Amino acid sequence: MSHASRYVVTLGCPDRTGIVARIATFLADLGGSIVEAAYHADADSGWFFTRQAVDAASIDIGVDELRERFATVAAEIGPDTEWAVHDSSIRKRVVLLVSKEGHCLHDLLGRAAGGELPATIDAVIGNHPDLEAVTRAHGTPFHHVPFPSDPAERGPSFAQLRELVDSYDPDAVVLARFMQVLPEDLCDHWAGRALNIHHSFLPSFVGARPYHQAFARGVKLIGATCHYVTAELDAGPIVEQDVIRVDHADAVSDMVRQGRDIEKLVLARGLRWHLEDRVLVHGRKTVVFS
Amino acid sequence: MSHASRYVVTLGCPDRTGIVARIATFLADLGGSIVEAAYHADADSGWFFTRQAVDAASIDIGVDELRERFATVAAEIGPDTEWAVHDSSIRKRVVLLVSKEGHCLHDLLGRAAGGELPATIDAVIGNHPDLEAVTRAHGTPFHHVPFPSDPAERGPSFAQLRELVDSYDPDAVVLARFMQVLPEDLCDHWAGRALNIHHSFLPSFVGARPYHQAFARGVKLIGATCHYVTAELDAGPIVEQDVIRVDHADAVSDMVRQGRDIEKLVLARGLRWHLEDRVLVHGRKTVVFS
Amino acid sequence: MSHASRYVVTLGCPDRTGIVARIATFLADLGGSIVEAAYHADADSGWFFTRQAVDAASIDIGVDELRERFATVAAEIGPDTEWAVHDSSIRKRVVLLVSKEGHCLHDLLGRAAGGELPATIDAVIGNHPDLEAVTRAHGTPFHHVPFPSDPAERGPSFAQLRELVDSYDPDAVVLARFMQVLPEDLCDHWAGRALNIHHSFLPSFVGARPYHQAFARGVKLIGATCHYVTAELDAGPIVEQDVIRVDHADAVSDMVRQGRDIEKLVLARGLRWHLEDRVLVHGRKTVVFS
Amino acid sequence: MSHASRYVVTLGCPDRTGIVARIATFLADLGGSIVEAAYHADADSGWFFTRQAVDAASIDIGVDELRERFATVAAEIGPDTEWAVHDSSIRKRVVLLVSKEGHCLHDLLGRAAGGELPATIDAVIGNHPDLEAVTRAHGTPFHHVPFPSDPAERGPSFAQLRELVDSYDPDAVVLARFMQVLPEDLCDHWAGRALNIHHSFLPSFVGARPYHQAFARGVKLIGATCHYVTAELDAGPIVEQDVIRVDHADAVSDMVRQGRDIEKLVLARGLRWHLEDRVLVHGRKTVVFS
Repeated sequence: MSHASRYVVTLGCPDRTGIVARIATFLADLGGSIVEAAYHADADSGWFFTRQAVDAASIDIGVDELRERFATVAAEIGPDTEWAVHDSSIRKRVVLLVSKEGHCLHDLLGRAAGGELPATIDAVIGNHPDLEAVTRAHGTPFHHVPFPSDPAERGPSFAQLRELVDSYDPDAVVLARFMQVLPEDLCDHWAGRALNIHHSFLPSFVGARPYHQAFARGVKLIGATCHYVTAELDAGPIVEQDVIRVDHADAVSDMVRQGRDIEKLVLARGLRWHLEDRVLVHGRKTVVFS
Repeated sequence: MSHASRYVVTLGCPDRTGIVARIATFLADLGGSIVEAAYHADADSGWFFTRQAVDAASIDIGVDELRERFATVAAEIGPDTEWAVHDSSIRKRVVLLVSKEGHCLHDLLGRAAGGELPATIDAVIGNHPDLEAVTRAHGTPFHHVPFPSDPAERGPSFAQLRELVDSYDPDAVVLARFMQVLPEDLCDHWAGRALNIHHSFLPSFVGARPYHQAFARGVKLIGATCHYVTAELDAGPIVEQDVIRVDHADAVSDMVRQGRDIEKLVLARGLRWHLEDRVLVHGRKTVVFS
Repeated sequence: MSHASRYVVTLGCPDRTGIVARIATFLADLGGSIVEAAYHADADSGWFFTRQAVDAASIDIGVDELRERFATVAAEIGPDTEWAVHDSSIRKRVVLLVSKEGHCLHDLLGRAAGGELPATIDAVIGNHPDLEAVTRAHGTPFHHVPFPSDPAERGPSFAQLRELVDSYDPDAVVLARFMQVLPEDLCDHWAGRALNIHHSFLPSFVGARPYHQAFARGVKLIGATCHYVTAELDAGPIVEQDVIRVDHADAVSDMVRQGRDIEKLVLARGLRWHLEDRVLVHGRKTVVFS
Repeated sequence: MSHASRYVVTLGCPDRTGIVARIATFLADLGGSIVEAAYHADADSGWFFTRQAVDAASIDIGVDELRERFATVAAEIGPDTEWAVHDSSIRKRVVLLVSKEGHCLHDLLGRAAGGELPATIDAVIGNHPDLEAVTRAHGTPFHHVPFPSDPAERGPSFAQLRELVDSYDPDAVVLARFMQVLPEDLCDHWAGRALNIHHSFLPSFVGARPYHQAFARGVKLIGATCHYVTAELDAGPIVEQDVIRVDHADAVSDMVRQGRDIEKLVLARGLRWHLEDRVLVHGRKTVVFS
C-alpha cells in the first residue's frame, strides 16, 4: 500500500534468448534495486512478457530520462517490442460510468477513500441521475448524460460522453454496471483503457440479464468477469473472474444480491491491477502479473 | 459414513398448504425418528420438494409396508405427486463407463474401497481396454466394448453396451470421462440414472476439447460439471459444479492436470448425492438436498 | 430482498419424536403457507433445531396472537424448549461500534442503503471521531465516546457506551472493527445480540495483530470470523468464516488490504443471518439455517 | 506435464543490486532459453529468492558442468548464497510412510501412475500392514515396520524405519497420514525432505484428532496443511493449505470424509512443488514459486 515510489517497466515481444539479461543488466547498471519482477514466456504465441518494479530512490535519473534510455534497450530487443515505463508516484485518474445500480460505485469510492487504489476517481458519469448524491458525498463531480430509449438516437449522448470522459484524460474508464453498449468507435478510442464488469462467468451468459439466464439453466455457481471493452459484446480480454456458490433455494433476486459481492471484488481487483500496470494485453488474452 | 440404517422419503408436487404436516404426522404416527429433513418451495415453478430420512430402527414396519402406506399419503397430497421411499441398508449398484483417461475411475474405485460411497461398483465398461488392469486390481469386472471410428457404425456397440449395463440393473450409470455421445434412445432408457462429468463450467465450452476452448478464451477459472445425461449434448440438469483458478502461465496441459482434480471432486460429490437420494430432478433443473 | 412479509418461527429443544409433526400441523391448521423450512437434529448434543418461515398473508391472525398460540405448542413439546416468533415486516435496529478503520462501516452503510439488510442502522458509535463524516453523509447519527489509553480508567466510557447503545434498543450491536475488548458485564448484558468481526480464521491468531501473527507463521490463507461476543476473548460461538489465498509475496500491508475484503463479506453475511433469525446459538456453537 | 527437459536453478541470498543481471547474463551467455523465471525480494528478512527453468536443449553443456560453472557465479554473489541446479530429466524418488488410512496413499499412487508427479514412488512403509495389498497392486514394494504401543519402546522401530528409508535415498519422505511423531534426530536427518500432511488448517488444532477439535469449536471451514517436518510438532514451514466449508449438520465423521478430499489435494500440490524445486525454505517460512 504505502509503497515507496517505484518505476515500473512492462514489456512484451517475440521471445528470444537474452532479453532478461539485457533488461536486468540495464537496470543493474543504473543501480536499480528490483522490488518486484515477473516473467512469462508464452509457448503458444511465442511471446515473452515481463514486468519489473524498481525502487525509484535507488536510481539517480528521473522517469523521463529512464524512459528515454530504455527506448534504446527496447529497440535493440526487436522492432515488435511493446513497452512502457511508469512512475508509481504519479497518481492515475479514473472516470466511472454508472447507471442506477450503485454497489460497484459505492465500493470503488470507498476503496479510493481508504487509499486502496493507486488513483483518484476524478468523475462519475451516469445515464441516470440516481447516483449523484452518493458521488457528491465523496466530493467527486457527477455528470448526468441522458440516453434516449431508442438506440438509434443515442449518437449525441455517446458524443457528449466521449467529450466529457476525454476532458479528464483518464488512465481508466470503468463501466461500473453502466448498462449501455459502447459503439465501436468508442471501443476503439478507449482501447486498453476501458474496463467493464459483466455479471456472469464469461463466456457463459453473454448479454442481457445474465442472472436470469443462470437461474433458468440451473447452474450451481454464479460469477462475474472484469474485461477490457472491445467492439464484440462481452468478448474482450478477461482480466479477472470469480464465482460464488448458489443452490436451488436461491431465486433470481438472491443471485442478484450474492452476485453483487462478486462483482465488486472482481472489478476492484481488475481495476487495481490495471492501474498498477500489472495487466499486459496480447491479442484476445491478458497476462496478469498479480 | 457408517450411518445407522435409514428410510429415505423423497417427494415433489405442486405446492399447497399442509403437505409438511401430512408427511410429518404420518411419520410421527409410526414413531419415526427424523434424522434429516429438508424442504424447498420453488416460487418460480410453484412446486414443493422434500427429503426426509428416518432412523429405520425407530419404525416397526419394513420398507415395503412403509412404501405401501406412504402411497396413500402421496395420493391424498395430489395426483401429480412424484415420490419414492428408499432403504439405505440396501446397497446400490453402479456401473462406470470409461475410455482411456483413468483419473475419475481411479478416484471412484478408491472411494468405494474406503466405504465412502453407499454403493458397490459392479462393473466397468471401456470403449478401450486401457483401464482393465487397474479395474481388475480392485476385484471389479471389466468389459471391453470397442467402438468403430465411424459414428455411423456404432449402433451395434451401443446395443452391446446397453445390454451389458442393463444386466447389472444399476442405480447409476456413470460416464466417467467416457468420451462417447450416447444416442437418444439410450439417454431416454437411462433417464435419471445416467450421470456425466463434463470438463468445463457449463454452459461454457460445450462439446469437444473444453480445456482448449478455455485456453483460447483466456478465462481465469476452469471448471467441471456433473449433470444428468439427456438427448441434448451437455444440456442435462446440473447436479454439481466447481472451479479452480488458472492464469496466463497455465498451458492447456496444465489445465488438463488441474482440471482433473476438479472433475474427480465434482463427479464424486454428484454421484454420492444421487446415490443418497439427495437429488430431485424437475424439468431442466435439480433440487439438491446436500 | 423485497420478500413478502413473513412470520418466522425458531425453536430448539431436546429431540424427540413428533416435534416436526406438531409444529407443521399447528401451522397448517392456521392455513400457513410455508416458504422456508429447515431442521437439524444434532446427534452430538441430542438437541433438535428448526426455523420455519410462513407467508404472513396466508394466516389470518397477527404476530402477537400467533406468538401466544405457539407458546402452548412449545410448552407441550417440553419445558426446555427455546423458541421465538418474529414478524419480518418489523424492521430491526442495528448499532455499530467502530474505531478508526472504516471499511466494515462503509460496507454495511452501503448495504443498508441498497436495501440488502432487513434492518436500519440507527447509530454509529466510535471511540475515535474519524468516521463521523462518512456516517453523517448517510444520514446516520454518530456518537463519539472517547476511551482513555489506560485500560483501568475505561469504566466510565463503557458505562456511557452501554447507556447510548441501550437507548436505541438494538437487535444487533455490531463491533465493526471496534478494537476495544468489552468487559464481562457488557458481554452478558448484550449476550446473543453482540456480533464481532475478528480478522483471522479463528481459533488461529486470537487477540491483537492477527495479520502480523499470520505473516510470522507463513500461512497460505488468511481469514476472518464473525462470532457472538462472550466474556472469553475471541471464543464466542462462530457464525461465519471465510478465507482468501496469500503467498510469500504478500507483506503484512497486503494481508491487511486483502483481509478487508473477507472481513466485509463475513461480517455482512453473519449480520444478515442474525437479523433474519437464521442463527440459533446452542452452547459454544451455532446452527445457521442459511 | 510432458515438458521438455529443463535445468532448474534455485537461489536464495541477502538481497543486493545486480543479482538478477548476474544470473540472467550467465544463462544468456550459455544460450539458455528461459522457460520459467520467478523472483522474490523479501522486505521483511532482506533476502532475495529466485527460481529459473532453462530449456536443457538450448544449452550445450551438461548439468554437472552447469553446476560447476554456476558455483562461481554463486560465490561472486556472496558467501551466504544458498543454491542448487537440478536436471528435470533425472526422475526423483519418493518414499511414503503410511498407517491405516489409505486415501492419500491411493491418491498419490494414482497420480504417479498417471504421470502427474515428476517422480517414482519407490517404496511404501507402514506401521500397520493394512495398505500392503493396494500398494503391491501398483507394483510398488511395501514394508511393514511395527511400532510398539508404548512410546518409550519405539526406538528400534524408528531405527529400522530410518535404515529402510535411507536405503532408497529418496528426494522426498512423505508422511501420508503416518500418525507417528518422528523423533528429533530423524527430523534433523531428513530436514528439508520430509513432508507431512496435517488434517487441520494450522496453526489451529495442532496435535491429535484435529477434526474432533474443529467440531467442538464449531468452525465453519475445515482445512489441511502440508508442511516440512521439524522437531517442533506441526510447526514446520508451511508449503500449502486449503479449506472446505462445513456446517452445523456435519458430524465429525462427515468432516473426516470431506477433509480427506482437502488432505489429498493439499499434499499432492505440496509434494509436486517440492519435487519440481519450487519450494525454497527460509527460517520458519517458505517461498513457493508455484
